[in-house]
Amino acid sequence: MEIPNFALFEFMISKNQIQHIKSLSINKFRKIHNKFIVEGPKIIDELINSPFNVKGIFAQAEWININGSALTNDTSITEVSEKELNRISNLKNPNQVLAVVDMAENIQPDSNTFNDLVLILDDISDPGNMGTIIRTADWFGIKQIICSDSCVDIYNSKVVQATMGSLFRVSVYYTNLKNYLEKLPPGQNIYGTLLDGENIYQASLTNKGFILIGNESRGISKDLITFITHKLTIPNYSYKPLDTAESLNASVATAIVCAEFRRQSN
Amino acid sequence: MEIPNFALFEFMISKNQIQHIKSLSINKFRKIHNKFIVEGPKIIDELINSPFNVKGIFAQAEWININGSALTNDTSITEVSEKELNRISNLKNPNQVLAVVDMAENIQPDSNTFNDLVLILDDISDPGNMGTIIRTADWFGIKQIICSDSCVDIYNSKVVQATMGSLFRVSVYYTNLKNYLEKLPPGQNIYGTLLDGENIYQASLTNKGFILIGNESRGISKDLITFITHKLTIPNYSYKPLDTAESLNASVATAIVCAEFRRQSN
Repeated sequence: MEIPNFALFEFMISKNQIQHIKSLSINKFRKIHNKFIVEGPKIIDELINSPFNVKGIFAQAEWININGSALTNDTSITEVSEKELNRISNLKNPNQVLAVVDMAENIQPDSNTFNDLVLILDDISDPGNMGTIIRTADWFGIKQIICSDSCVDIYNSKVVQATMGSLFRVSVYYTNLKNYLEKLPPGQNIYGTLLDGENIYQASLTNKGFILIGNESRGISKDLITFITHKLTIPNYSYKPLDTAESLNASVATAIVCAEFRRQSN
Repeated sequence: MEIPNFALFEFMISKNQIQHIKSLSINKFRKIHNKFIVEGPKIIDELINSPFNVKGIFAQAEWININGSALTNDTSITEVSEKELNRISNLKNPNQVLAVVDMAENIQPDSNTFNDLVLILDDISDPGNMGTIIRTADWFGIKQIICSDSCVDIYNSKVVQATMGSLFRVSVYYTNLKNYLEKLPPGQNIYGTLLDGENIYQASLTNKGFILIGNESRGISKDLITFITHKLTIPNYSYKPLDTAESLNASVATAIVCAEFRRQSN
């Protein structure tokens, strides 16, 4: 390959770098270093065009040749072999490029949020669900998600990859939900999906408010249910009673709810 | 524990059994033995109440004490320790009981299917998506799914667990989709979700027909698109062009489409 014209270009990955990158697959070390991993050309293309600060790129030569010039000057670039990429990757099938990225700050959303739809996630624990919910929010123009402190870490590799780049466009704020909901100004709409709510297709949905989504097995916590101003249910269509799924997957339920809010408002 | 009153009760799991069960985590051996694995009390409760034939149960004593009597006489029951269960389980957190089950036959659906909604899955490859789609179909009263031969195996452990028991209520038929669609009687509605279709909320949806869902990255195969009679699109709600997710997760898109078909028909 041509030697690229970057200040911070390296031909070799060091043992320390390998150790550092591998440590970022663990929540504790992500928190210590305040960094996380993104992998694959498609999502890294979205990353580069986002406000996130890319600290380091570890990529095979063919990726660097095509994309290296799009990086800012304070991003270090290290060429790696396929074997080295395999060593540092969290994916079954590593794909050309891995980035080390600074986490976003955990910032409480301001009052502009009250003019919009916001998702509140209570203890979503499956990384695939979390990633899919972020991607779905992005599709439906929901720019803010508020997570309970017990939710899976959005910088978990499986979450990052499942967002397909939407992580870089949606703000996520972790907090104690009970405290957060208590301090909301009065008059907010707080929607929650429960099995005994109003049929969502008969409910009158607005274009501002909070949509509360519960844990995969336990649903919405008891101490949060009291904050709900509108209980909603997605109707099911079984031919015989009991001869049907007991519930929907959490990310699927979230998507159906978001879609219906947007359908009614258009 | 009390010695249960079953003909086929065993106190010990043999090395051969362990080997046999572990082999069923691999597609090839599932096909050879025509068997698959189901785990956990909740989904096994649904299994026992389904038409599926349970060949063997491997469970800790507390599960057997409570549930053993619900099993039919030709199910062998083997008590296992927690350690033994860990050895044979596909789960991160093994949960009391594992069942070895006969696969259902791969039966082409009859013409009654034409009076109903049917999902057609073209090369769905992620086990989590497949399981979630089966669960969603069950929720929306869709009793038949037709899969391309290239779809992930529904008896893959991750699929089975993600269906949360819906696998036992929804029929799945694997086939060559092009051949299948070519041989359909004329006049069938074949809906497909594409990025350039009619807004699904403006389309007039019926309560019978086939809904074609494409692969996670490539969408619907080119040679199947020609069969589509109604192209549908789920609208997105970005505030700025391009500032949004490029697409929805396949199981999420399926769910939004199924929900809208059922909403319009009620």
